[in-house]
Amino acid sequence: MEIGIVGPGAIGLLFAFYLQKNGQDVTLYTRTVEQSERLEKCGITCVQNGIRETVFPHVSPLENINNGRHDYTFVAVKQYHLEDVIPYLQAKKRLVFLQNGMGHLHLLQQIQGASVAVGIVEHGAKKENVSIVHHTGVGSTKFGFIHGERKQFEPLFTAFSSNLFPVVVENDWKQTMINKLVVNACINPLTALFGIQNGELLTNPSFHKVMKQVFSEVMGVVGNIQCKEHWDRVCTVCENTAHNTSSMLTDIHNNRKTEIDAIVGYLIQEAKKQQKSVPTLSFLYHSIKGLER
Amino acid sequence: MEIGIVGPGAIGLLFAFYLQKNGQDVTLYTRTVEQSERLEKCGITCVQNGIRETVFPHVSPLENINNGRHDYTFVAVKQYHLEDVIPYLQAKKRLVFLQNGMGHLHLLQQIQGASVAVGIVEHGAKKENVSIVHHTGVGSTKFGFIHGERKQFEPLFTAFSSNLFPVVVENDWKQTMINKLVVNACINPLTALFGIQNGELLTNPSFHKVMKQVFSEVMGVVGNIQCKEHWDRVCTVCENTAHNTSSMLTDIHNNRKTEIDAIVGYLIQEAKKQQKSVPTLSFLYHSIKGLER
Repeated sequence: MEIGIVGPGAIGLLFAFYLQKNGQDVTLYTRTVEQSERLEKCGITCVQNGIRETVFPHVSPLENINNGRHDYTFVAVKQYHLEDVIPYLQAKKRLVFLQNGMGHLHLLQQIQGASVAVGIVEHGAKKENVSIVHHTGVGSTKFGFIHGERKQFEPLFTAFSSNLFPVVVENDWKQTMINKLVVNACINPLTALFGIQNGELLTNPSFHKVMKQVFSEVMGVVGNIQCKEHWDRVCTVCENTAHNTSSMLTDIHNNRKTEIDAIVGYLIQEAKKQQKSVPTLSFLYHSIKGLER
Repeated sequence: MEIGIVGPGAIGLLFAFYLQKNGQDVTLYTRTVEQSERLEKCGITCVQNGIRETVFPHVSPLENINNGRHDYTFVAVKQYHLEDVIPYLQAKKRLVFLQNGMGHLHLLQQIQGASVAVGIVEHGAKKENVSIVHHTGVGSTKFGFIHGERKQFEPLFTAFSSNLFPVVVENDWKQTMINKLVVNACINPLTALFGIQNGELLTNPSFHKVMKQVFSEVMGVVGNIQCKEHWDRVCTVCENTAHNTSSMLTDIHNNRKTEIDAIVGYLIQEAKKQQKSVPTLSFLYHSIKGLER
């Protein structure tokens, strides 16, 4: 299959690596010519459990995307770059969006003339440099269908198959997205604000209280059902990723824009629609915005 | 006059320096014998506007305080050490307490057999080491009388007099304390949380929003009167101390206990009495507690 992947971030590199390794004909699209040239030359190296492996997909600047006739196109840019990227995708027939958060769903619903799916990525991935990605946690990619014919995506699933890179089809993908959103909202902004690894949200009793306060407001927005399950999931992720530095903390350390809009910004918008007051989320949102210098 | 000063922190050193320099017979009391010996030997050096000056008051460990017959005793320990120190003061007839915040007022009201005053310190002072203090901002000390005969304190005021170390008697000292509390509550915890100098609370629009959110809750607790005056005061202090590192941020950097209980802890207690919800203050309180490692 011919597969296009837009965005050479950690998730874009991870997808390009595994799909190319699994025998697909992958083209990775970058924002700049420099990135393309560098990746063309070095290939993509993935480090997993101490093993380094390099593959050489095609690489090209995004402006050339309509030269390629991809069976499937993955979009792996950050949520806040989606509006810039979508105009390049008008000729594509099958699109899979891999963004965190839920703030972008309304954009995907507006896409016409294509079958649109989302992939909820539960892998841990960290970019070391332009061409090296560390696969720090093996999870799965959970597929949800936004619109169009879902059977059009079935051939794609054979491209996953590796036990390190499995795929799951989720009928209730919105719930899966909410589950991930709750976890992200409780963990990422606080670790960025306090400059701590994920585990300290469990081991420091004061931070644990703060996380519980954030959690309560999040539950008020997403609906108070299965509250205990959500909380257990948040705590389990803290535990399993205790020594990880969250991507939001890494973004703050590197003076980069964070995904706060996609995560907490979305929840604040939802709260507004429901006319609910969310002072803690609001505090958190503006605090992270302030730290994005 | 014979004057005792308990606590060789920035404020204790500042008071010992100016009162000794103004011709009083000062004894400074320390927690440890080592601190006493060091201060006895080096004296107290105060740096103000580039000028360094050293005075040599008596210095003694706190356990010897009842050997001294002080006309006045200043208590300059942090609020969270007051309960340890008060038992040593039972023989003292005139006490002046210099703590930040308002959480300790109930302790002062319980002191019997002495005339008790508070000094609201509006100086900027920073300790460089055991014996050197920087007088970074010249303000005044505002006196309030808690109980006992206020005329007993009148002779003390002649010991201030310096234009760098003036004294003011405040009939409405509680309002003065509230004014300072509002400023401290809005500025100190946020600078400590974000790791920023005071001025960035004005210049960074997101941090400014967060400060306004904190301010609104504080106003809800202290009563919404003179709201604009309070806000203007907060902003003026941010401006005048734009390049200062708050004492709370310094405490966090040095892994020391902060004054969060005296400031935000007190406001949360007051809110509880009034059955008001203060999620922002609660978030702030536990965040700073968590950072006090």
